[in-house]
Amino acid sequence: MRYLLKSANITSLQRKIAYKFNNEKLIKNALTHRSAGATNNERLEFLGDSILSIVIADSLYHNFPNASEGELSRLRSYLVKGETLAVISRELKLGDYLLLGQGELKSGGFRRDSILADCFEAMIAAIYLDSNFEQVKKIILNIYETRIKDNNIFNHLKDFKTMLQEYLQSNKLDLPKYELLSIGGEQHNQQFEVLCEVPSMNIKTEGKGTTRRKAEKIAAEKMLQQLLK
Amino acid sequence: MRYLLKSANITSLQRKIAYKFNNEKLIKNALTHRSAGATNNERLEFLGDSILSIVIADSLYHNFPNASEGELSRLRSYLVKGETLAVISRELKLGDYLLLGQGELKSGGFRRDSILADCFEAMIAAIYLDSNFEQVKKIILNIYETRIKDNNIFNHLKDFKTMLQEYLQSNKLDLPKYELLSIGGEQHNQQFEVLCEVPSMNIKTEGKGTTRRKAEKIAAEKMLQQLLK
Repeated sequence: MRYLLKSANITSLQRKIAYKFNNEKLIKNALTHRSAGATNNERLEFLGDSILSIVIADSLYHNFPNASEGELSRLRSYLVKGETLAVISRELKLGDYLLLGQGELKSGGFRRDSILADCFEAMIAAIYLDSNFEQVKKIILNIYETRIKDNNIFNHLKDFKTMLQEYLQSNKLDLPKYELLSIGGEQHNQQFEVLCEVPSMNIKTEGKGTTRRKAEKIAAEKMLQQLLK
Repeated sequence: MRYLLKSANITSLQRKIAYKFNNEKLIKNALTHRSAGATNNERLEFLGDSILSIVIADSLYHNFPNASEGELSRLRSYLVKGETLAVISRELKLGDYLLLGQGELKSGGFRRDSILADCFEAMIAAIYLDSNFEQVKKIILNIYETRIKDNNIFNHLKDFKTMLQEYLQSNKLDLPKYELLSIGGEQHNQQFEVLCEVPSMNIKTEGKGTTRRKAEKIAAEKMLQQLLK
């Protein structure tokens, strides 16, 4: 078992996140992987996940007053997914403070995305328990500021056709079929109607839009909603 | 379009939840289904979902200090799933206040689980935006008190074998196969080792336990983790 690699101590971590713990036990728990003992960061991770989710949701809700529920929800997914959390964790060098068991230590657990992401979530919970919601919100928003204010943030959204395809592939289901049902409206204001079908599930959805592509995306979104129900 | 069925007005709702809105527009938005107009409760629902999640997570974390992360997470799923929210929504008679479009109104949308659940989440967000985290937390915990303090709350947890089976069925995949690999240890302290396999996904996991059933549950839990990765 190792503790505080590179003799880093939590003072430098506290400086980095601009927060000083009243109860240092909390941050030590947050930095303890389950491989290192029974008192570890798993319960904190459970709590931290929810805290992160509401703080990001709140921020997106206010920053993007015109975004739809679907867009907000996909933006949040991007911002709280394991990969993103691991990047943040690396920026904070959380791996340097991790307490790991012998096995994880040897296999380089402090570099692993999932361990780093969990550790970040646990740290969020530790701050919350040590202070309050407003305080942890301030720290999270500080960490996320450049990501949320990123002008290209909407580029991180996958479109629904891609999401549907990935979902079906990961569930070993056949790919969706799109079929143009009708083109209506005036020449300069056409309305496309498209059918999306996943034959093996026997589900069909329809989408309308001013281009065929837009209509397909809407049909794909509805299909995803059906599949995830 | 209808507004405030049975001539109920939001005063009675405010009394029921013991909260008076400063900005009544917020609660009206929360009670407006998308079928009734462009300014509806979808964005609020997105926010409310997260608020509910952290308040329930926080409460479970403190009320069940010995529960594992997995148990906490399954308890929360039970407490925030659509069915539970619809029950709460009915207790609060939210259906009486719903603003629905003509189509939904005719087809009885104010009785539908999903619409009622969404509306409850949106109301939670409306309270949060109108006040603050501590205030909405108080109201949620008040609504949930008997559910969280329920002595039988752990009975609502599905075991992992059931969860795995449901997951596979809902994804139209073949059922898992369990195979006893070995029985070790002394007579009074036996150790069972079990293999769980989902052939069509070509994934195998193993579980160990003091009974065959326990070993199977652990193998099923690992399988679920693999599948949900």
